[in-house]
Amino acid sequence: MSTVKLVSDEEATGLVAEVFADIRKTRKTDFINNFWRALAVDGQLLKATWEEVRGVMAVPGELDPLTQEMIYIAVSVANACSYCVHSHTASARAKGMTDAQYAELLKIVSLAAKTNHLVTAMQVPVDPAFGLAASKD
Amino acid sequence: MSTVKLVSDEEATGLVAEVFADIRKTRKTDFINNFWRALAVDGQLLKATWEEVRGVMAVPGELDPLTQEMIYIAVSVANACSYCVHSHTASARAKGMTDAQYAELLKIVSLAAKTNHLVTAMQVPVDPAFGLAASKD
Amino acid sequence: MSTVKLVSDEEATGLVAEVFADIRKTRKTDFINNFWRALAVDGQLLKATWEEVRGVMAVPGELDPLTQEMIYIAVSVANACSYCVHSHTASARAKGMTDAQYAELLKIVSLAAKTNHLVTAMQVPVDPAFGLAASKD
Amino acid sequence: MSTVKLVSDEEATGLVAEVFADIRKTRKTDFINNFWRALAVDGQLLKATWEEVRGVMAVPGELDPLTQEMIYIAVSVANACSYCVHSHTASARAKGMTDAQYAELLKIVSLAAKTNHLVTAMQVPVDPAFGLAASKD
Amino acid sequence: MSTVKLVSDEEATGLVAEVFADIRKTRKTDFINNFWRALAVDGQLLKATWEEVRGVMAVPGELDPLTQEMIYIAVSVANACSYCVHSHTASARAKGMTDAQYAELLKIVSLAAKTNHLVTAMQVPVDPAFGLAASKD
Amino acid sequence: MSTVKLVSDEEATGLVAEVFADIRKTRKTDFINNFWRALAVDGQLLKATWEEVRGVMAVPGELDPLTQEMIYIAVSVANACSYCVHSHTASARAKGMTDAQYAELLKIVSLAAKTNHLVTAMQVPVDPAFGLAASKD
Repeated sequence: MSTVKLVSDEEATGLVAEVFADIRKTRKTDFINNFWRALAVDGQLLKATWEEVRGVMAVPGELDPLTQEMIYIAVSVANACSYCVHSHTASARAKGMTDAQYAELLKIVSLAAKTNHLVTAMQVPVDPAFGLAASKD
Repeated sequence: MSTVKLVSDEEATGLVAEVFADIRKTRKTDFINNFWRALAVDGQLLKATWEEVRGVMAVPGELDPLTQEMIYIAVSVANACSYCVHSHTASARAKGMTDAQYAELLKIVSLAAKTNHLVTAMQVPVDPAFGLAASKD
Repeated sequence: MSTVKLVSDEEATGLVAEVFADIRKTRKTDFINNFWRALAVDGQLLKATWEEVRGVMAVPGELDPLTQEMIYIAVSVANACSYCVHSHTASARAKGMTDAQYAELLKIVSLAAKTNHLVTAMQVPVDPAFGLAASKD
Repeated sequence: MSTVKLVSDEEATGLVAEVFADIRKTRKTDFINNFWRALAVDGQLLKATWEEVRGVMAVPGELDPLTQEMIYIAVSVANACSYCVHSHTASARAKGMTDAQYAELLKIVSLAAKTNHLVTAMQVPVDPAFGLAASKD
Repeated sequence: MSTVKLVSDEEATGLVAEVFADIRKTRKTDFINNFWRALAVDGQLLKATWEEVRGVMAVPGELDPLTQEMIYIAVSVANACSYCVHSHTASARAKGMTDAQYAELLKIVSLAAKTNHLVTAMQVPVDPAFGLAASKD
Repeated sequence: MSTVKLVSDEEATGLVAEVFADIRKTRKTDFINNFWRALAVDGQLLKATWEEVRGVMAVPGELDPLTQEMIYIAVSVANACSYCVHSHTASARAKGMTDAQYAELLKIVSLAAKTNHLVTAMQVPVDPAFGLAASKD
């Protein structure tokens, strides 16, 4: 149950129809997942969000596509976003993530959570050596 | 100000001294950051945590060391762990992260946070297509 | 599936029945949502929580009722509370939130999440100009 | 201590200088806070983030400027972003937030956090009545 | 740097002075920590919060005082509240928490964070056996 | 729907079968909950996680088993882990948690969340009195 109506292809007109068409063209698939159908509640929000996602995730950048997806999963897990974990794990697999890479991702994400909580519990002061100048020298 | 005493080299004995020595040997540096000096409040906790970090982060695995650090940063940012963000950003830079790669990391982490919150606000239902069977077929 | 039994009207007695009656009277509806039926696991907790909610949300205050609900939604999204997002989005709509206002709420909440993560990733130091004295002078 | 260099006016050139100029012009102040000086680590990220903030927060929209800031504070508190809490509380005060309004904001944010945790602890099932169709009928 | 003025003893009048006096009497100490001096920005909020804390934490209940403080620390760590971690760790020590108990608290909190993230990453479905009826039969 | 296949008893071989056998032996029950069946996606991760859980939770330590479970619930609630809340609430009840103790746990967890958010909103500075030296003297 969502808090907004999911816009079907039949209901998509104007700006929404344009963005749906661009999603299909860019991703080379007819499938449009529910995130975009929900965002279609507002054409401008849909367009701006899609253009940001396309610009960051769908354009060759400094990090390879699989690394991008794993970073996305990591944030989504820590923010407890169930849908996002599902969608980006599916994307990572579609981009070639092996079971062994996934297992290592799980190990790093959960280890980070563990040490995050240890550090916060003990209120560890930042080492001066981590400073910018220090790391550059 | 930490909630535990940071153990200096002079105060390190027994198990703590052994772990400190292994950190220095494994990392090939004399520097021991405050996280380990705080964990030294309990020798067993220090040893178990170090062995887990060493096993996941310091041993060649499925993901390259820089990718590992960027995933670690992503989780630490989402969990709002200041110390962890500092220490792993310093590590990522030491492992070769360029300014351009860092900027892309920032873009992905912040975009993920944005879409995480959009999805949670709209309570988007998971697409059946994200299912395991679906992603494997 | 909840971790506590939801108390039905038939099972409500004593303090629980009194609070249920006050909820109905205050809200001018026969509907009592599951949050209160779950809290009824402990009469005192139910009473104290209802009185706090009634005092903050149901009494004319400094902020208008719709603004109150949107702030409530914002916190609930960031805390990833699915039920709370649903209940307060329904309340906000019942209090007149338009689709355009909802779209703007989505934009602000997701933008805030984005900049929250950027700031935490970069560990931006607080500007002295944000200080109390500064903002008052 | 930040993880990136804060770009001073003297160091700002090209795209960064252009954005700094637009911030000053739009906000009608010479003051540029550290968030923008940190984001200047990457001109494109700075420009895109500023344009999004300007579009959402600095253009008359569906919600009044003070309501916008209070929603921003609510998200920032829940995400534990110290800098963001400071900067948006200062902005809200600059936009006229009274002490009484601030006190009510505190009451709503903390009450929401309290009920968020109660709901998550008890895993309260979503009432069908909160559904879209239900809320519209 | 706080977003509100900390109210000193000299500035405390009326309701604020009454609450300060009750804190001193209840806790049998002249020390009033900054949380209360900040909350004094609003007399009613200060009074209501103090009465809730006093009712839950300062009155003999179902859980012993040290267990209460450790649960408080656990939530505060997960919510990344630095001040709260400091204040409740100090309280726990004042109530007799030993170094060994503290070390075990650290182990449980960090293990929970680790498995929380593993579960969220894998989106593990809830076992029917965890249901209320099941646990009661 | 999980992101990994849940390993059934029939599919469990080698390391996975060994860990499943140890879980059954240690817990004196034939029931293996889904968390372990999901972790079985990677034998080493399953083994290491089980050994850590067994070492912290299943061995007599400084804190009694029920206190351990309540601390675990507290972290899981704050991290919004639905499965974890269910599994550890069921465990706590199996270890004797009464309805009255559970109600007090709810009161502490939600009060902590409330004051966490108040403190973060007001950015209360840490009292020097909370320092280590201070608490020891």
